[in-house]
Amino acid sequence: MTGEAAFINAMRALATHPAARGLADDTAVLPFGGEVLILTHDMMVEGVHFLLQQDPADIAWKLVATNLSDLAAKGAEPVGVLLGHMLGHGDDRFAAGLKEVLERYNVPLLGGDTVSAPEPGGRSMGLTAIGRATCVPVPSRSGAKPRDDIYVTGPLGAAMMGLEALQSAASTPETESAPDDSSSGSDAYRRPQPRLAEGRALAPLVTAMMDISDGLLLDAFRMGTASNVSLHINAQQVPIAAPEDRRQDALRWGDDYELLFTLPAGSTPPVPATQIGRVTPYVQGPVWLDDRAMTQPDGLGFSHI
Amino acid sequence: MTGEAAFINAMRALATHPAARGLADDTAVLPFGGEVLILTHDMMVEGVHFLLQQDPADIAWKLVATNLSDLAAKGAEPVGVLLGHMLGHGDDRFAAGLKEVLERYNVPLLGGDTVSAPEPGGRSMGLTAIGRATCVPVPSRSGAKPRDDIYVTGPLGAAMMGLEALQSAASTPETESAPDDSSSGSDAYRRPQPRLAEGRALAPLVTAMMDISDGLLLDAFRMGTASNVSLHINAQQVPIAAPEDRRQDALRWGDDYELLFTLPAGSTPPVPATQIGRVTPYVQGPVWLDDRAMTQPDGLGFSHI
Repeated sequence: MTGEAAFINAMRALATHPAARGLADDTAVLPFGGEVLILTHDMMVEGVHFLLQQDPADIAWKLVATNLSDLAAKGAEPVGVLLGHMLGHGDDRFAAGLKEVLERYNVPLLGGDTVSAPEPGGRSMGLTAIGRATCVPVPSRSGAKPRDDIYVTGPLGAAMMGLEALQSAASTPETESAPDDSSSGSDAYRRPQPRLAEGRALAPLVTAMMDISDGLLLDAFRMGTASNVSLHINAQQVPIAAPEDRRQDALRWGDDYELLFTLPAGSTPPVPATQIGRVTPYVQGPVWLDDRAMTQPDGLGFSHI
Repeated sequence: MTGEAAFINAMRALATHPAARGLADDTAVLPFGGEVLILTHDMMVEGVHFLLQQDPADIAWKLVATNLSDLAAKGAEPVGVLLGHMLGHGDDRFAAGLKEVLERYNVPLLGGDTVSAPEPGGRSMGLTAIGRATCVPVPSRSGAKPRDDIYVTGPLGAAMMGLEALQSAASTPETESAPDDSSSGSDAYRRPQPRLAEGRALAPLVTAMMDISDGLLLDAFRMGTASNVSLHINAQQVPIAAPEDRRQDALRWGDDYELLFTLPAGSTPPVPATQIGRVTPYVQGPVWLDDRAMTQPDGLGFSHI
């Protein structure tokens, strides 16, 4: 067992409170004061989740947007965030990006911590998002049922194409194109849009829901595993925002933050969404892509917890 | 203005929601459902807040205890924590220490994130603690009134002496004493005890309260500033857990996590506590030590945010 797997197992053994959902869901779900709190915390690490040369405004945007996307998967309304910030270069740009994203989604900054960076060292940032459930029971990954239809809220691969546009721009002379030029098509990668409104509309109807942060196939693998079913995905039905010859990549690439959800057979989703397959009882693996069962998460997407 | 001060000013400009308390208090205070949420997030950075050679179990304890201490200052009952963990050496010890501290204070782990460390780099950890107010209005730093009495819940300097014991043990040959030997008197530094029960008992009675994380004088400076009063502290009345010739150091050293609070004149605190002075209208500075007004926080304690 790797050190990471061992550590996560140790955390699962500690997280016995029902609100923790066994650390197998996007968020914690905690009844409080007659309502239900939705709580999530994500970290971003320089060299792992972002690069030194990225515009810190984009890093701030993504840090907030990825946490809000977890709230979206629960149909939750954001009520605020706490920021753990490590000081460093470009803090003014970070603050500017934070302001933009918080204003865009009308989320207040409630508090947090500001610390010095270690010497030498990559920086890290953490964000805690706090939400209010708008629908109880709160959707989980574990409710998909045989015969349900499987949907996604939008095309996949946009972030992949955006990152490649950024990398291509960065490798051309600066006089031609700035790496952070928003006209480069990189917005989907730099400034993901959490599907908050879609999540709220879907929450009362779905049998299972999660956001696609690590790639459709890997996240579907998690949903199938949590629900103890097989998700049969038809590759050609999946909407992609990439050239056709990149379809297989688009199914595996992360950072798109669309919602993956299941509905009872024949239901009509209340928001734009595309049916990509159907649920069956568990057979061989939690995900089938066309006629092939996938039995291992390795290689399905970007695997981190 | 330093980069840090500029960044914190930018955050204050963003944190206009009343729950943020202007980022000038220990925690956020957010009405939710029919109750009040108390929210706090602290980070610890290798080389800044802990050292590579420390037992990771102690780092986990301290990370949780310092956040619970912020809840204690609000008279809050902890309802759970979210952990942002960067993988590294000694993760098994970290998990063991986390289990110990969560069981000791009966606090559930609700969720969080596990990430890889940057290469090369110091590690960082973040913790968000969520609490339930047991007393509304929730105590703040800003309510101290002229003629109030000033108290602390216990002696100061214990963490200072504990750190020195650790450092002394580390410099002796390993065969004589292990650096993490708990008999070395270092417990106060390694395993601080948040004053949760005391905070809850005090919350309905205090005019102002905060935990002493950065040294009595610096934290009193913050309370006096927030309350727009002068806190007159009698150095000889302050209980210390250090030799008498270290009294001035003990007033400035952090990491003790006792509670500093003010009560209307003549009240009797419901928990063991020592009166150390009295509040007056603001004159010259927010803190007077004996007959000297302190007008600048520099040098009063360990100044970080």
